[in-house]
Amino acid sequence: MQIKLIVEYEGTAYCGWQVQPNGPTVQAALEAAAQRMFGESTRMAAAGRTDAGVHALGQVVCFRLERAQVDVEEVRRGLDALTPDDIVVRDAAVVADDFDPRRSARRRTYVYRIWNEPAPSVFWRRWSWHERRRLDVEAMSSAAAALLGEHDFTSFRAADCDAENPVRRVYVSDLGANEGLITLTITATAFLRHMVRNIVGTLAEVGLGQRPGAEMSALLARRDRTLAGATAPAKGLCLVRVDYD
Amino acid sequence: MQIKLIVEYEGTAYCGWQVQPNGPTVQAALEAAAQRMFGESTRMAAAGRTDAGVHALGQVVCFRLERAQVDVEEVRRGLDALTPDDIVVRDAAVVADDFDPRRSARRRTYVYRIWNEPAPSVFWRRWSWHERRRLDVEAMSSAAAALLGEHDFTSFRAADCDAENPVRRVYVSDLGANEGLITLTITATAFLRHMVRNIVGTLAEVGLGQRPGAEMSALLARRDRTLAGATAPAKGLCLVRVDYD
Repeated sequence: MQIKLIVEYEGTAYCGWQVQPNGPTVQAALEAAAQRMFGESTRMAAAGRTDAGVHALGQVVCFRLERAQVDVEEVRRGLDALTPDDIVVRDAAVVADDFDPRRSARRRTYVYRIWNEPAPSVFWRRWSWHERRRLDVEAMSSAAAALLGEHDFTSFRAADCDAENPVRRVYVSDLGANEGLITLTITATAFLRHMVRNIVGTLAEVGLGQRPGAEMSALLARRDRTLAGATAPAKGLCLVRVDYD
Repeated sequence: MQIKLIVEYEGTAYCGWQVQPNGPTVQAALEAAAQRMFGESTRMAAAGRTDAGVHALGQVVCFRLERAQVDVEEVRRGLDALTPDDIVVRDAAVVADDFDPRRSARRRTYVYRIWNEPAPSVFWRRWSWHERRRLDVEAMSSAAAALLGEHDFTSFRAADCDAENPVRRVYVSDLGANEGLITLTITATAFLRHMVRNIVGTLAEVGLGQRPGAEMSALLARRDRTLAGATAPAKGLCLVRVDYD
């Protein structure tokens, strides 16, 4: 049978989702917990393979168990208890065998937070990028809206991104500010490697007046990564939701 | 001259505000930073001497310097840079010599957060008390409202509280829920030791149906600490604001 989990994690201490030879990962922590709980070696698959330092509040994770029935609340509680405090198993459910957390996903939503005050924030420090220089939120918001719709995102993908098709449809690209916190919420079919962080790095340059906001559409059309801004820090990024049919 | 700081801290790693022989405190960290920055030994005084594990987003701290003028933004930045990441110096200003952060304060506002879901929250885990059992928010909210006005808070003070007068005026006592998070906001002239945490421990018993909410007024009138609930954990408590004339 296949179990689907909703998992939260603070990425600060992890080298990302995916198992790596050198350093702790969220996948390794969950697989170790399952090994201890069920005495079976299982492979955990996630909807989004988040990078080092990136957080998740709605990661979807699946794994298979060699048994006919389980108490899903017991599975949730057990895996949560066997993982460190910075990983929380929020929900567990039985899903069909052909459900694939990555391939079956229709939309992903990420949030990126920028703390835009002269002083850092104790509360947001682990969950945001601190930019001391004043950002023009209105200019950034207009520039963000230019990403809506279907585009080739080659200009915003990492050099080592291995996706075959760079075209993605963006359903939501909403940037707003609340006191010192600037938040970009972006929903798309899927994301290329570093796509959100490269978009945010570019929007920050718009916010600093270093490039015109109207340039975003032209940037997409040029399909050249060297023209866009720097990659924003991982700690501002959080996978908040994955939607399925 | 006297400098007034607005200080934020995550209390997790500290034995509270006040300098102690055994263990790190926020006061000691700030005094060490000032010693390094100014080469003078200074004593930092705070509006509220928060207990071990309690957070602050609006603590007011004053200290004296043996000089005629300073660049306050330089003071802010310097002290912030010389303290650990879990202490942020958000603001600095010159104040009159007779300003006393504790005695001059007219109102303090604390927030107490309860995370009320079966699973913990990765995001709120350091800033809230996790209570798995379902709490009746409406009953707690009515009970909290009974604290408004001037009362003798003997029933909610710690055994070792050394305040001479147990009477306090409560201006705001507002409890509400947003998704899994229950928040009590309470503003008063001042607070007795453990007062908010003892109120929250009692409100939680109301929320669990273990005591009637209508009992709050009678509890105040009885002036007996043994009749109220247990002290809620420190990590849910945060000093958010101090008001002056």
